Amino acid sequence: MGRFIAQIILMEAAFLLPALGISLGYGEQSAVYGFLLSIAIILALGIPMYLACRKTSLRFGVREGMVCVSLSWLAMSLLGALPFYISGAIPKYVDAFFETASGFSTTGASILADVECLPKGILYWRSFTHWVGGMGVLVFALAFSSGEQGAGFTMHLLRAESPGPDVGKLVPKMKQTAKILYILYIALTVLDIIFLLCGGLNLLDALCLGFGTAGTGGFGVRNDSFASYSPYIQDVTTVFMFLFGINFSCYYLLLLGQFKSVFKDEELRLYVGLAVVSALLIGFNTFEASFAGDFWEALRHSAFQVAALMSSTGYSTVDFNAWHSFSKGILLLLMFIGACAGSTGGGFKVARVLIVFKNLRRNIRQVANPSKVMAIRVGKKPINETVVNNTNAYLAAYVILVIATFLLIGMDGFSMEKNFTVTISCISNIGPGMDALGPVPHFGDYSDFSTGLLGVIMLVGRLEIFPFLILLSRSTWKRK
Amino acid sequence: MGRFIAQIILMEAAFLLPALGISLGYGEQSAVYGFLLSIAIILALGIPMYLACRKTSLRFGVREGMVCVSLSWLAMSLLGALPFYISGAIPKYVDAFFETASGFSTTGASILADVECLPKGILYWRSFTHWVGGMGVLVFALAFSSGEQGAGFTMHLLRAESPGPDVGKLVPKMKQTAKILYILYIALTVLDIIFLLCGGLNLLDALCLGFGTAGTGGFGVRNDSFASYSPYIQDVTTVFMFLFGINFSCYYLLLLGQFKSVFKDEELRLYVGLAVVSALLIGFNTFEASFAGDFWEALRHSAFQVAALMSSTGYSTVDFNAWHSFSKGILLLLMFIGACAGSTGGGFKVARVLIVFKNLRRNIRQVANPSKVMAIRVGKKPINETVVNNTNAYLAAYVILVIATFLLIGMDGFSMEKNFTVTISCISNIGPGMDALGPVPHFGDYSDFSTGLLGVIMLVGRLEIFPFLILLSRSTWKRK
Repeated sequence: MGRFIAQIILMEAAFLLPALGISLGYGEQSAVYGFLLSIAIILALGIPMYLACRKTSLRFGVREGMVCVSLSWLAMSLLGALPFYISGAIPKYVDAFFETASGFSTTGASILADVECLPKGILYWRSFTHWVGGMGVLVFALAFSSGEQGAGFTMHLLRAESPGPDVGKLVPKMKQTAKILYILYIALTVLDIIFLLCGGLNLLDALCLGFGTAGTGGFGVRNDSFASYSPYIQDVTTVFMFLFGINFSCYYLLLLGQFKSVFKDEELRLYVGLAVVSALLIGFNTFEASFAGDFWEALRHSAFQVAALMSSTGYSTVDFNAWHSFSKGILLLLMFIGACAGSTGGGFKVARVLIVFKNLRRNIRQVANPSKVMAIRVGKKPINETVVNNTNAYLAAYVILVIATFLLIGMDGFSMEKNFTVTISCISNIGPGMDALGPVPHFGDYSDFSTGLLGVIMLVGRLEIFPFLILLSRSTWKRK
Repeated sequence: MGRFIAQIILMEAAFLLPALGISLGYGEQSAVYGFLLSIAIILALGIPMYLACRKTSLRFGVREGMVCVSLSWLAMSLLGALPFYISGAIPKYVDAFFETASGFSTTGASILADVECLPKGILYWRSFTHWVGGMGVLVFALAFSSGEQGAGFTMHLLRAESPGPDVGKLVPKMKQTAKILYILYIALTVLDIIFLLCGGLNLLDALCLGFGTAGTGGFGVRNDSFASYSPYIQDVTTVFMFLFGINFSCYYLLLLGQFKSVFKDEELRLYVGLAVVSALLIGFNTFEASFAGDFWEALRHSAFQVAALMSSTGYSTVDFNAWHSFSKGILLLLMFIGACAGSTGGGFKVARVLIVFKNLRRNIRQVANPSKVMAIRVGKKPINETVVNNTNAYLAAYVILVIATFLLIGMDGFSMEKNFTVTISCISNIGPGMDALGPVPHFGDYSDFSTGLLGVIMLVGRLEIFPFLILLSRSTWKRK
């Protein structure tokens, strides 16, 4: 396990090199110093660790996979925070950890009130963490590593890192699946960046916004998020945020020409349906309350906000905090539901909503026929009962985590609406909140304890809770 | 089924007689007129219905039991609203329905800003609905009806009306069980009333407050709930609210001398533990924020509020809305958790929290041993897997109902904190909310649609959702 974590953090050092290059190019002394020292620290930790653990091997089960994933993500966030801290961009280490955890978990909640004054290299690194976090760093390592690991090993890692109730294999080999996913991810990201460049953005901004959109993260490069960009840039981003919230296996099936099975995908249908209905409802509601001059303008902003919150990206074009509480309620619901399984988005996942609803319906029907065995089907495929039970347990874990976090950050004394939306926002990896915490959220006023806690909670949410519960479970650490 | 519902509403006419007597005694003309006309309407509906359905009999299964229970409660609330409306105490019928549903469901949320000006007979009827709703009207009918119905019939009705994940039989016969429960209920209520009388209350006030406490309802007779009563009255009520939140089978076991099994009851332990820890935490928190002169004063109010919200009664001695959001967060959590199964209290129920937690722990442990069959145990007794799955489905139904209600009442445009706490408060049958809706809640500013919806939601929450879902399920109404 140590060898694996060492590999991951050494990879992080490599990821820092382009950011270092940008800072060198712009002559940003403090950032160059920050990146160099960070790389040095990571190498000083990672190389001895790699050498020490090179020869250990371990029976790799689900549990070990999950522990491995949660430790890797914690290590990445703790080390990825170094450039922010050392360069002086973020004076407190706990804040820098929050910012990095927010990046890797693709939350996009920021400690910074002013991002426009940051060195370009730091801005690039901040957005790049979103891109890596979106599809997952272990998936990346699997896809592009040279060695062929055991099938069980890769499967367990993927299961822990990929969002959703169940992992579908696209092709028989897990490593091939990981590669296909990453190639699709890169292709869509490049497409987004090209569209943004066509809108007149410079390359660095287009890269940063592209990374933020692709990972469904939400870090921007301007203080007002997307409010001051042209309608073209906003609309392109609406479309791409929505696209990155779709299960990537749909794109693979499209490439294979299996249009029919994509069209019949129940999760996709529900995702599209929810987004369209919500955008229309909020469009009418905000138009009626005259937040926009004409209906199309209202619908444009509504669609942007729906795509932004449902895909868990969290960009904003307007101050939706001022909207009517009906619209805000819908947005909060979408924040909770989140995107499709197997996408880069966060939240509870549309697939899980389907399973929870279908299980409920089955329970009601079973009252009449208690002895009849009924299977739950999603798209005609019966769902394994273990998946159903895990989904229910996930809902319970999610609710418990929301309540616990809500109570703990409540000690800082902010309003309940702020605390509640912050909690949902962090666990679902969205970013913005409501009430005092508006669409462009600054978490700077929370205490150090809450900041650190929320940082961890974002990672817990990104990995879908269970890996961390297993990391903390007593039975994991018991000697046999 | 018609016969049964007719019996229930005729029983309601009988329940109205004491209230009529009180109004006659106090010479309250409008109320006397209201009660007389209401009784006449109920008889005019109930007697023909009873005669028409006298001879029908029906194969009675779980489903029919649940439909029967939900229709009875709806009918009781619709008809019980008549005295409020006809006497002019509440000018709008939908508001009167809300008030009555709030009474029977033991919520205690009120449409009225001023209750002190109400006729005494109306006040008595308002509080008496709590008492009937607390233990359940069908349980009452079963316990004291002369005929002996089939065992399946009574079991199914009890299961639909009694709160909690599972119904325990105290004695082999269900009818005896119902009788024991009601006798315990009456004894505890009388005890409470005696204690209140000792504190100098007049008989009518003691009856009303006793009913409100016993049913864990929350309707009072003063506009400031419990704030202006003496510390003695407040403390007596703290103790009794807490006692009525305990599973009544514990009292039966105590009477039988089985102290050990009561002491080892896992649900009771968790209930007591949560209450004590919460009261202490809030006591410290409010003392520190100097909401009270000394620590004992703070603890006294904290204990009252914890008992009031956890038992889902909803009385208040202070404006807890002004408290720190840490304290308010704990109260909100207790509102969600609620009381013990088999008590008169509402909420999700402590027993269900136990099952949800234990299922989650099992899922985590099972990751390491996927093939091992592990049973969930509460108090050494293994829990049936159907109960576990039903509990999970209940959590899902609860979350979905909260979200839907929250969204629908959001159209009225009040703050999210108000709407959210109102929703939790109505589903869990508590009464007060937070933000604009304070500890002495007036729901008068919601629209007619929201008022009616919340009225229904309170009943849905009291019957624990499933009976109403089955009432609405298409398969229930399909012809075979």
